[in-house]
This record gives sequence, structure tokens and C-alpha cells, in this order.
Amino acid sequence: MSWQSRFEELITNKVFEFFIIFIIMASALTVGAKTYNITPFWLSVLAVADIGITVIFITEISIRFLATHPRRDFFKNGWNIFDTLIVTISLIPLDNSDMALVARLVRVFRVLRMISIIPELRILLNSLLKALPRLGYVMALMFIIFYIYAAAGSLIFEDVNPVLWGDISIAMLTLFRVMTLEDWTDVMYETMVVYPMSWTFYISFIFLTAFAFLNMVIGIVVNVLEEEHQKERDADPDILHLEDVYAEVKALRALIEKQQGGSSGSGP
Amino acid sequence: MSWQSRFEELITNKVFEFFIIFIIMASALTVGAKTYNITPFWLSVLAVADIGITVIFITEISIRFLATHPRRDFFKNGWNIFDTLIVTISLIPLDNSDMALVARLVRVFRVLRMISIIPELRILLNSLLKALPRLGYVMALMFIIFYIYAAAGSLIFEDVNPVLWGDISIAMLTLFRVMTLEDWTDVMYETMVVYPMSWTFYISFIFLTAFAFLNMVIGIVVNVLEEEHQKERDADPDILHLEDVYAEVKALRALIEKQQGGSSGSGP
Amino acid sequence: MSWQSRFEELITNKVFEFFIIFIIMASALTVGAKTYNITPFWLSVLAVADIGITVIFITEISIRFLATHPRRDFFKNGWNIFDTLIVTISLIPLDNSDMALVARLVRVFRVLRMISIIPELRILLNSLLKALPRLGYVMALMFIIFYIYAAAGSLIFEDVNPVLWGDISIAMLTLFRVMTLEDWTDVMYETMVVYPMSWTFYISFIFLTAFAFLNMVIGIVVNVLEEEHQKERDADPDILHLEDVYAEVKALRALIEKQQGGSSGSGP
Amino acid sequence: MSWQSRFEELITNKVFEFFIIFIIMASALTVGAKTYNITPFWLSVLAVADIGITVIFITEISIRFLATHPRRDFFKNGWNIFDTLIVTISLIPLDNSDMALVARLVRVFRVLRMISIIPELRILLNSLLKALPRLGYVMALMFIIFYIYAAAGSLIFEDVNPVLWGDISIAMLTLFRVMTLEDWTDVMYETMVVYPMSWTFYISFIFLTAFAFLNMVIGIVVNVLEEEHQKERDADPDILHLEDVYAEVKALRALIEKQQGGSSGSGP
Repeated sequence: MSWQSRFEELITNKVFEFFIIFIIMASALTVGAKTYNITPFWLSVLAVADIGITVIFITEISIRFLATHPRRDFFKNGWNIFDTLIVTISLIPLDNSDMALVARLVRVFRVLRMISIIPELRILLNSLLKALPRLGYVMALMFIIFYIYAAAGSLIFEDVNPVLWGDISIAMLTLFRVMTLEDWTDVMYETMVVYPMSWTFYISFIFLTAFAFLNMVIGIVVNVLEEEHQKERDADPDILHLEDVYAEVKALRALIEKQQGGSSGSGP
Repeated sequence: MSWQSRFEELITNKVFEFFIIFIIMASALTVGAKTYNITPFWLSVLAVADIGITVIFITEISIRFLATHPRRDFFKNGWNIFDTLIVTISLIPLDNSDMALVARLVRVFRVLRMISIIPELRILLNSLLKALPRLGYVMALMFIIFYIYAAAGSLIFEDVNPVLWGDISIAMLTLFRVMTLEDWTDVMYETMVVYPMSWTFYISFIFLTAFAFLNMVIGIVVNVLEEEHQKERDADPDILHLEDVYAEVKALRALIEKQQGGSSGSGP
Repeated sequence: MSWQSRFEELITNKVFEFFIIFIIMASALTVGAKTYNITPFWLSVLAVADIGITVIFITEISIRFLATHPRRDFFKNGWNIFDTLIVTISLIPLDNSDMALVARLVRVFRVLRMISIIPELRILLNSLLKALPRLGYVMALMFIIFYIYAAAGSLIFEDVNPVLWGDISIAMLTLFRVMTLEDWTDVMYETMVVYPMSWTFYISFIFLTAFAFLNMVIGIVVNVLEEEHQKERDADPDILHLEDVYAEVKALRALIEKQQGGSSGSGP
Repeated sequence: MSWQSRFEELITNKVFEFFIIFIIMASALTVGAKTYNITPFWLSVLAVADIGITVIFITEISIRFLATHPRRDFFKNGWNIFDTLIVTISLIPLDNSDMALVARLVRVFRVLRMISIIPELRILLNSLLKALPRLGYVMALMFIIFYIYAAAGSLIFEDVNPVLWGDISIAMLTLFRVMTLEDWTDVMYETMVVYPMSWTFYISFIFLTAFAFLNMVIGIVVNVLEEEHQKERDADPDILHLEDVYAEVKALRALIEKQQGGSSGSGP
């Protein structure tokens, strides 16, 4: 038995898979544990655990790489590239004070390996990502609405409160806040002192974004329902269709016409 | 007539059922009344009522137990176990000052008996609980999103506000608050003073969770609609199917072919 | 031509209807105008207008009453009773200082006549009210959840903040606030100082109510969709059903069997 | 080749279209850039760019006008009128200090040309606008609810807080805030000090508007689903219908009846 097929057997083994999931969970827990104030003893335990996890991850990805045939196919899978990157970057020594934060954040992203290793989560994420493009034009329309209101807002309200309306990017952040309805009246009452009619600005913006958002949601619901409907129809090719009944009746008619032709032929 | 069948008759009696519902309501009212500042006279009235309610509950559950045949089946029903537990625990004398709160809380849970006694509420709760497992993977994905953002947040923002970002569990609570859009800008503006780009952290988190939540809702809607559709089709076996028409046409064809064979056989 | 049929003609007249809608709008405007600080001149104008509106309303309802045949049927219609009540109560002189507010509020409710006079709004309101009963059990379940959390909350948190958790009714109002996610963290952070684990109380409550609310919404959507579906099927009795095709094929078979019987009978 | 057909060719040219989209984007960027504090050098660059953009827009619209045949049809298209207006108004010299803001705002609206130039966005906006009328009566009902609550609110609560309940228009703004659940408890707690039962006012208002809003959303969803369903049925006239099978069976029966009549006729 070749090394490659042994490796292939190993990575499809359920025990191996659960072991890797357990290691990713351990990795997530060490990341979480470091956010608490812990004693130096536990800090060194975590450091050792971290080295162990890194070693296991390198071993696992190497096995995966060696099991793939041909080997260049390994990097055709986006998740493999992601796993390799996450593990490779965590190898770079970044523990001087400036980059320690970056090193810690890279370890946080290891938790994302949970998605790459559990097929159901991968499918779920893919279906989420697939839904994004069909939102494209609604997103573009929303961005145009935001841009116009932000430009108008920062032109008119800049002197009222430069912290909220200083320039167009800050104004867009303020408008996102208004869209989420988070303390939007505080923003409004402030500008209404200077411009008493400025409530029209906020109410029209809230109506526009709520309406566009609602249409987006309804669009997704209708799309998903139709896809399900289509999938159901395609799924079962053995199901009886109206076409089958039609074909049968047609055949019956041909039979009778032939018989009639025969009987009228044999008549005289 | 045996005792058992008399008890069975009693617990299926409508008057008995309404009496028990009335007692549970009285139990709920005594629980509510105790939260007000009441005179010692009414306090003693409530104490007497409490003893009466406990006695009636014990009697009722005993009757239910004795009416079940065989008796060990009584504890196969989750609601029976729940009822027995609630009533039994409220028998333990816990009125010393330390445990008085626990004793009172146990009496609060008696109100839940309303669900165990009214079949429609029981069905509703069951259907709610049945919907939970299909949310499993979306919940897992959401938890991973929360965990990563909480780990990153508590690493980066710990020094800005340890009350909100002190460790990973506090950070998850803060992120839940941000997800519900409750004063999330207060949290953001605070960290933006130190990290001006930290708005990306919040906006991306809100988008991710809103999108995952939306997909969860749509998933449930589609599932429920399909189940209803399936139920409708299964509900009425007498309904005419395309298959029946097909079978009839097939039979007709066989008849004509036989006739044709017969007529050609009788021909010469 | 009798008086009754003349009145009947009048109330079905479009011009008359638009005139009454115009008067209701005028009535709404006078109600609105009184909320502004207006000069004594305009106050007296409004008082005159008010008398005029009342006179027109009395005349209109009298005509409606006289046009109904038999007259006791007039009060079988809930909207007629509502109109009569609103107009009658506004006749009672309540202008002493104590009851002036009540007199004004009664005039506010005249605006509701807009719903009783426009059929489309009446239909819309009826369909809204018809949707309420099917929410009955979900509402009951939600009330039980509220009651239990409110009882537990006022028992545990009363000493932390009696303004929010003083008794069970105040606690239910506080919980309604938490359900609408309005500054719920302020409520939570306050109790977490004394009971650090009290976040479980709020998070579980938000999850439960959000989940029950979501199921209520989905339930309504599914119900409405099914009703539409049913209505569509019932609406067109001329539509071709599978049953018709089946009957036709059956008849065809009977015909052929008769023919076959006949031909075999006439055979020898 | 005539000038007109050359212009027609030009405006349907993809390169020309992308060039105009690029210019609109540049126009949007200059609008955004002006909201920042920029050096005089960049201010003059923006002024030059502004002149260039205006010139290009005039040229483009002139070409569009000249390419239309007959020319009066140009102004039958609403988007053409919109484009011409936006460009014409930005030609008026408004740079004195009083009107500078208006001049800047007109330039902001140029960004809306993005919608008039990209067909997909135009279709999306049209479908959004088409959905509005069917909301008409729900909107009217909501307005009546708002008007009555605002009138009642400003009558009762005016003395509590004239800033929120001063007159009916301010009260409607306050109620809109309550509907969005934005710090609605602050409004409520304030009036509960004077009128302890005023929570009924807010809770009933929130329930009414939430319920009306929910019904509006469900109405839209059902409408959209039905339209899609109808569109699907209409889209494919070649699809086999039950009617076709029915007609075929009918024809078959006629054939057999004729044959039978013929055979019984030829019998004797």
C-alpha cells in the first residue's frame, strides 16, 4: 500500500476528523483564555499548547497535501489555501511588542478552520455567499441613496456638528446609524435647532432605506422559494407528468385510428 | 366500577380541567400579589391560599398517577415529570431567610403548569422546540462569528474600555448588544477615538449577523411552507391524482388492444 | 316617491359621500388646529366650525337612520352604533374646566369616522381584526413567558431598582421595553452589578420572545398564503379540474365497453 | 450617413456609455471631495473638473436630443427631462454666498444620473415605485392612527413636555420616534410621572403600528409571490395544460362515437 493511499485513508477517517475538530476547539479555547488575566503558570501552559497545536496543524496540512493526487490540485481548493495561509502565518515569529497583537489576531483566525473542516458549515457559508451577487443592484441603489444623503448632509449640517457631519465618509457612518434607528432622534433634534425642517431629511431617508431593505428581503424570499420549487421538480425524474398522460392518450388515438382505417379497409 | 376508571373519568372531565386551570391561575395571582407591598392580613390570606393550592395540586397529580395504567407509564410523559417535580419541590420547607427567594421562585414556575394542562399550548411549544434543531448549523456559524469577533475585540479594545471588552465572555455580551443595535454607536465612538478605523469592525459584524439572521428566517419560512405543502398532499388520500387518470387511460388502451386482437381473431 | 327612498338615494350618492368625507377632514383639521397656540379670533372660528360640523353629522346620521328599512336594522350595524355614539357624546356639554379634556378627546375620535365611511378602510380594518384570533394561543404563551419572567424579575431585582422591578406590573412594562430592545443594556448592567449572572435572565428572555414572535409572523404568512391559495381555487368554478378529465376518460371506457359488448352480442 | 444616425450609433455604443458612467462617478467624487477640508490648489482642480464635467454633460444631452427622432419625443421620457433639468440648473451662476449651498446641492443630485444611465437601476427603481400604490390604503389607515394618537397626545401631554407634544405636527414626529422604538421609554416615563396610566397610550400605539406594519409586509410578500406565479404561467405558452389532455380525450371520444355510429349504421 502506497504512502499516498494510506494518507488518503487517514484524512477520510472519522476519528482523525474528530481529533482535528477537537484540536481546533482547543486552539479556540487557548485564544479565549488569553483574554483573561491569568497566572504566569497558565500562560506558559498556553504557550506550550500553542506550539503543540501549531505542530499538529502543520502535520495535518502536510498529510492533506501529500494525500492529494496530483499535488498541484491541492491549491485549486480555496479552503486548502486558506488553511495553509493561516497555519503558515502563525509560524512567523512576531512576538516583539509591536507585532504581538498581529500574532495574536492570526491565532484568532484559526477558529475559522472550524468552517473549512465541517462540510455542513462550508455548504452553509457557500449558500450565504451565493446569495450576495443577486443583491448587487439593490446594494448599488442603496449606496447611491447613502452617497447623496451623505453629501447633502455634510454640506448642510457640517457647521451644526462636525463630529457627525464633518465630511462625506463620517456622514455616511452617521446615516448608517440613522438607518439602524440607533439614537437617530439625538442626531435629528440637534440639526432641527438650526434647520427646523431638517426632520424631512431623516424621515425621507428612513423611509427610503426601509423600503429598499424590505424589497431586498422580499426579493430573496421569492428567489429562494422559486429555487426550492425548481429543485423539487428537477429532483424526481420518475414523477408522473401530465406529458406522460398526454402521450398515452395520443397513442390510444393512433391505435383506434389504425383500427378504424383497418375496419373500414376490411369493410367492403 | 374500579377506582382507576373513576379517576380516568374524572381527569377527562371538562369541569375538573377548568377547576385545575382556575387553581393554576389563582396560584399565578398569589405569586404576582406577593410582589406588591401588602398588609400582614393579606400576607396570611396568601399563605393559606398557598397551602390550599399545594394540597389541590398534590391531590390532582395523585389522581393522575392512579388513573394511569400501567402506573410506570406515568413517568414516561415529560410533562408529568415536570408537574410532579414542580409540586414536590414546593413541599420542601425553604422559608429560612437564605432560601426564601428560591422557595418563591419555585412557586413562580407553577405558572408553567398552564402549558402542561392546556393541550393547544403544549402543541405550540412542541412545534417551537421542533423548529430548533434545524437551526443548529446556522447557530454554530453565528457562534463562530461571535467567538472570532469577541476574541479580536477583547485583544484590540481591552485597554479602551475593560468594562465592555475585558475578556472574551464580556466581549460576547457586548457584541450581542451591538447585534441588537442597542446603543452600538456609543461602543463604536469610544473605540474610534483610539482606533479611527474600528468602525469597520462594527459595520462588518452588523452586516454578517444581520445577513446570517435573515438567512435563518428565510430558511425557516421556506421549511414551514414546504412542510405545509407536504402535509396538505398527504392529508387527503382520497384526492384524485394524475396517476389515477393515467391508470384509467392505460386500462382503456388494454381494453381496445384486446378488442382489436379479438376482432381480428374473429375476423376470418 | 317616498321620503325613505329619497334618503336612500341621497346616501348612496357619490357627491353626498364626498361631502361627508370633506366634513370629517374639516373636523380632523379643527381638532389639529386646536393643538396650536391660536388667536382668540381663530378660536371662535373653530368653535363655530365645530357647531356646524356637529349639526351636519347629526343630520347625516338622521338621514341614514331614516333611510334604513326596517329602522331597527340600523343598530345591527356596528359602525352605525359607533357613529351615533361619537356624535351623541359630542353633544353633551362638557366645557367646564374638569371635563374640557374629555370633550376634546371625544372630538378627536370623530376622525375614526373616516374608517366607517370609506369602505376600503373598513374592509382593511376587518381583515386586520380577523387575523387577531388566530394569534390567540401564541399571545397566551407570550403572556405566560412575560408573567413568569416578571414575577422572577420583581422577586430578584426589586432591591436593585424598585422603579423598574417594584411589582409585577412594573416588571412587565420593563420586560416589554427589553423585548423592544430599547436601552435594555442599561437595565441589564444595573442588575449585573449585584447579580453578575443576571445577563442569562435577559438573553434567555430576548431569545424566547424573539423566537415566539418570529413563529407568530411565520404562522401568519403561511396562513395568509394558504387562504389566498384556497380563495384562488374557489374563485373560478369554471376552471378545468383533473376530475373532469377523469370523468371523460371513464365515460369513454364505458362507451367502448358497451360497443364491445354490443359487437360481441351482434357477433354470432 | 446622416448626423442623426451617427449620434444614434454613438449613444448606443458601450464605450460611450462607460465613459458617461465614469464622468458621473467623477462628478460624484468631486462632490464628495468638497466636503473635506482641502488645500486651495485642489479646490481649483475641483473647479476645473466641475467645468469639464458640466461641458461633457451638456454635450452628451445635446447628442441624445439630436439623436431622438422626432425630437419632441425626447421630452416624453421622464428621465430625459430629469437629466436636462439637473444639467441646466447647474449652469445658473449661484456662487454668491447666499445661494452657494443650493448650487452645491444641485451638483449632489447629478449623482442620481447614475440611475438614469444604468438600465438595471432604472428597472429596480420603477419596480419599487410600482409597489407604492398598493400600499395606499394601509398608509391612509396608518396616517389616521397617527393623527388620532397625535391629537390625543398633544391634548393630554402638552403641559408635561411641550418640546415633544407642543402641537399635532411635533406630536406626530414624536410618535414616529416611538414607532421606531427609539428611546420611547424616555418619552413614556416622563408622562407616567403625571399620568401613571399613560403607558397604555404607548403600548397600544406600538401594538397597532407594529400590527399594521406587519400586515403591510405580509401583503407585499403575498402580492409579489402571486405576481411571480402568474408571470411564470404566462411566460411559457408552449407548456402542456390539462386543457390539452382534455381536448385530446374529447376528440378520441368523438372518433369512437363516429366509428360506433358508422359500425351500427353499417350493421343491418
